[in-house]
Amino acid sequence: MARQNGIVQPLLTDLYQITMAYAYWKSGKVNDVAVFDLFFRTNPFQGEFTIFAGLEECMKFLENFHYSNSDIKYLKQTLPENIEPEFYLYLKELTCKDIIVSAIEEGSVVFPRVPLLRVEGPLIVAQLLETTLLTLVNFASLMATNAARYRMVAGKNVSLLEFGLRRAQGPDGGLSASKYAYIGGFDGTSNVLAGKMFNIPVKGTHAHSFVTSFSTLDDIHRVTLTHAQTREPCNLLESAMEWRSRVSTVIDVSTEESSDGELAALISYAIAFPTGFLALVDTYDVKRSGLLNFCAVALALNDCGYRAVGIRIDSGDLAYLSVLARETFEKVGETFNVPWFAKLTIVASNDINEETILSLNEQGHKIDCFGIGTHLVTCQRQPALGCVYKLVEINGQPRIKLSQDVGKVTIPGHKEAYRLFGADGHALIDLLQRSSEPAPVVGQKVLCRHPFQESKRAYVIPSYVEHLYKICWKDGRVCTAPKPLSKVRERVQSSLRTLRQDIKRNLNPTPYKVAVSDDLYNFIHDLWLQNAPIGELS
Amino acid sequence: MARQNGIVQPLLTDLYQITMAYAYWKSGKVNDVAVFDLFFRTNPFQGEFTIFAGLEECMKFLENFHYSNSDIKYLKQTLPENIEPEFYLYLKELTCKDIIVSAIEEGSVVFPRVPLLRVEGPLIVAQLLETTLLTLVNFASLMATNAARYRMVAGKNVSLLEFGLRRAQGPDGGLSASKYAYIGGFDGTSNVLAGKMFNIPVKGTHAHSFVTSFSTLDDIHRVTLTHAQTREPCNLLESAMEWRSRVSTVIDVSTEESSDGELAALISYAIAFPTGFLALVDTYDVKRSGLLNFCAVALALNDCGYRAVGIRIDSGDLAYLSVLARETFEKVGETFNVPWFAKLTIVASNDINEETILSLNEQGHKIDCFGIGTHLVTCQRQPALGCVYKLVEINGQPRIKLSQDVGKVTIPGHKEAYRLFGADGHALIDLLQRSSEPAPVVGQKVLCRHPFQESKRAYVIPSYVEHLYKICWKDGRVCTAPKPLSKVRERVQSSLRTLRQDIKRNLNPTPYKVAVSDDLYNFIHDLWLQNAPIGELS
Repeated sequence: MARQNGIVQPLLTDLYQITMAYAYWKSGKVNDVAVFDLFFRTNPFQGEFTIFAGLEECMKFLENFHYSNSDIKYLKQTLPENIEPEFYLYLKELTCKDIIVSAIEEGSVVFPRVPLLRVEGPLIVAQLLETTLLTLVNFASLMATNAARYRMVAGKNVSLLEFGLRRAQGPDGGLSASKYAYIGGFDGTSNVLAGKMFNIPVKGTHAHSFVTSFSTLDDIHRVTLTHAQTREPCNLLESAMEWRSRVSTVIDVSTEESSDGELAALISYAIAFPTGFLALVDTYDVKRSGLLNFCAVALALNDCGYRAVGIRIDSGDLAYLSVLARETFEKVGETFNVPWFAKLTIVASNDINEETILSLNEQGHKIDCFGIGTHLVTCQRQPALGCVYKLVEINGQPRIKLSQDVGKVTIPGHKEAYRLFGADGHALIDLLQRSSEPAPVVGQKVLCRHPFQESKRAYVIPSYVEHLYKICWKDGRVCTAPKPLSKVRERVQSSLRTLRQDIKRNLNPTPYKVAVSDDLYNFIHDLWLQNAPIGELS
Repeated sequence: MARQNGIVQPLLTDLYQITMAYAYWKSGKVNDVAVFDLFFRTNPFQGEFTIFAGLEECMKFLENFHYSNSDIKYLKQTLPENIEPEFYLYLKELTCKDIIVSAIEEGSVVFPRVPLLRVEGPLIVAQLLETTLLTLVNFASLMATNAARYRMVAGKNVSLLEFGLRRAQGPDGGLSASKYAYIGGFDGTSNVLAGKMFNIPVKGTHAHSFVTSFSTLDDIHRVTLTHAQTREPCNLLESAMEWRSRVSTVIDVSTEESSDGELAALISYAIAFPTGFLALVDTYDVKRSGLLNFCAVALALNDCGYRAVGIRIDSGDLAYLSVLARETFEKVGETFNVPWFAKLTIVASNDINEETILSLNEQGHKIDCFGIGTHLVTCQRQPALGCVYKLVEINGQPRIKLSQDVGKVTIPGHKEAYRLFGADGHALIDLLQRSSEPAPVVGQKVLCRHPFQESKRAYVIPSYVEHLYKICWKDGRVCTAPKPLSKVRERVQSSLRTLRQDIKRNLNPTPYKVAVSDDLYNFIHDLWLQNAPIGELS
């Protein structure tokens, strides 16, 4: 992927990773071996789940991890002069061949504290990966989660299109948004380059400027279309004018109120796209102009052997206008005996967010497809996911990061994560264990403990146990075959299906439980006591 | 720039631009000539100004605008089968040679409704540029504005560093954020690749993981540093241990409470960076461990001929801790007769936004430098700027887009924009005129009218008139020499200085006035009446 080779490279990092690398190198820690966990502490969007995405891009980053000559030259100019020159030779040779990455499957639902990635290997190399891995996972997971939430509120039968490129955070922000919106459950994008790069369906029709570029019927340069079956020429202008008169009496709108420029634009568009005629109808007035002109052109197309696709509404009261449009289509279809007219597609696309969709659902809209831009691609409700990358073990010794804020205390050591399922197929709990412990066994009760609250404990008898980590990078190679985006997209939906509805709901969702084993609980708390200073009351 | 050639290309657009292009082409509008305005309607962040940025990237996009063979192949697969093959030949030959772009100078303060770019030329080409130009201007201007706002609240004497890469919206989101934060007034970034690509100062020290990777003093592998002047070896460990005892009595903290692992980390870091020792002091406890260990190492370094730089605090009450740190440095400096100790740099970097800085200002902090991440790079307070791109003229005929919402009515026709200044050097008003009108003249009164409210009018006598547009693209070439980022950055500050303080303030700022000439006012309203249908009361 051009973009990967372009900017996802070792210098796409914070300078302190490189200054730390030098300090480690200088203090003889070249052979130290570390374990880092990459995890987040809070689900985004006031929800109780997150979709993990970005893993494949992380793998490409590891594959290409290499400081070029020009990188080294830049670092020499940038770091202090007294850096030992051997350090640059050391950097020049660095690769990820001694790193092992274990990860949860991309597209899975994931929860706070359960590491998404576990990175093991030489301390210096593992440290140097931090920022780039976070950059690649944070936005990807945030976008996929946001998209999955839109999919849930919209329901299965509504199409969702990502229309956000112009409002995205830069060109690549737009591409990432298109990619991870698709993974999260969107059906397509307007972003052509994303379509080309990621093989995502691309969609789109025309803008208001197309309509306003026509003023009168004289602006139509071409009026003839060939009949789909008979191949006879049809005069679309004459036919549409006639239909406009007939429809105007049925839907009680005067032809004088409707815009001739709009009709000219729609006729021209229909001649260009007779098989894909989906028209924007709100340039002037949906009720008094757009719907009438659309019906006229759609019926003219019908006479010429083509079925129109539908309309797009980009302003106004979407519930009211979609109901009005549907009623109009039903009435016109019935009057002129064109039954499929009732099923024309209605697309809505004006500043839509999760709440708008919920509100439209309550009002009973007739929209078949939402085109969603700004709120989706900028994740307006929460524009960053807070994944962190924490040292949990060094040279076999566990490390704990203490904090006044219990939520920020890290869970130390090399760990495994399991998801325990109940008999109904729902996920019950995620369980972190020390890697030395045996895996939980189906049918046998497991003591699951809250990591920090002593009294919160429960026995769980799993009907199915999923080991969450797979080694995806070892010996300098990606260990898992890359999955097409469509498979990751399916994984998102199948993984979401294992979550109880109350965990997924929009309002006051129930938190999913993440627990530690009894052994890990004691391990954490022994270490905590060893590391916490004894204070003085004063 | 690698990234430009990579993804900023004609396919980085919405599909509907290409379907519209075909419909225009098919309906014989190949020789139509259009004028589009690119503008926004509301300033971001509840402020009353915006910084215009992204122009240079727009110019590179125009330079490289060309559909490759693989683009054409992809479009053939993607568009309907019945597209005429000649259209693809037409696309293949398209360039921006007949386009003229006029723009406001990059880095200027700009206001709602005043077009930032005016794009003139073949309708089809100008339409095809829309989405990409919006993508390039929207986020760049939003970030530069956000950064400029941080600069204003922080004041001139505080350094601002952009630390947001890990939370940015993808890799390029991170690079754009670094670049436009610098333009907006930041002093540097942690993003090494941004430093390399854009020649921005890069900054950074170490993370908590560096500190926690050391457990005891035995983890120090190297204790010797060469004296800066005498070149004698200094034992930094012995010296720091001795200083730790001495300082502990001065600042009333027991050496037993302070972390030996932290001391080991700081000594190792100081040995690696004796001339740039800036230490993170909140891994365990700023008061009881971090400050003591830092002072010990800084004084040991001092004995060895080096001056420490300072500390970074990444958690807790930043006002309190910065004051505590300053007092500690003053006391230690005075006690041991090291006067520069009082001036050590204090960096703060925990989830800082505009409001945090304002609150810290009120509390009287002692911070010299803020490292700002998430809130800056995601523009959390408003993650998108709503620039739009509207057709205002076609084949010499003005176009107006009407809307129930007056704020969305476009100002039609080919226009010029002027900024009128008062005798004190402050900008008074931005004035839009029809291009056929003579420019306002210094010392002569000009009638400035609200574009939509008939009674809002004022006479202005400018002491200086700035014509806001320069032609920056014509005859297939960039007309203005590219400016180094540092010049654009200076332009931001000099442009902001021309704005009255009440327009720039954080709370309830005064709106800056944007007006139209009397001639343009009448032109708008005549067109409006011509185009608006006469409704019926019912």
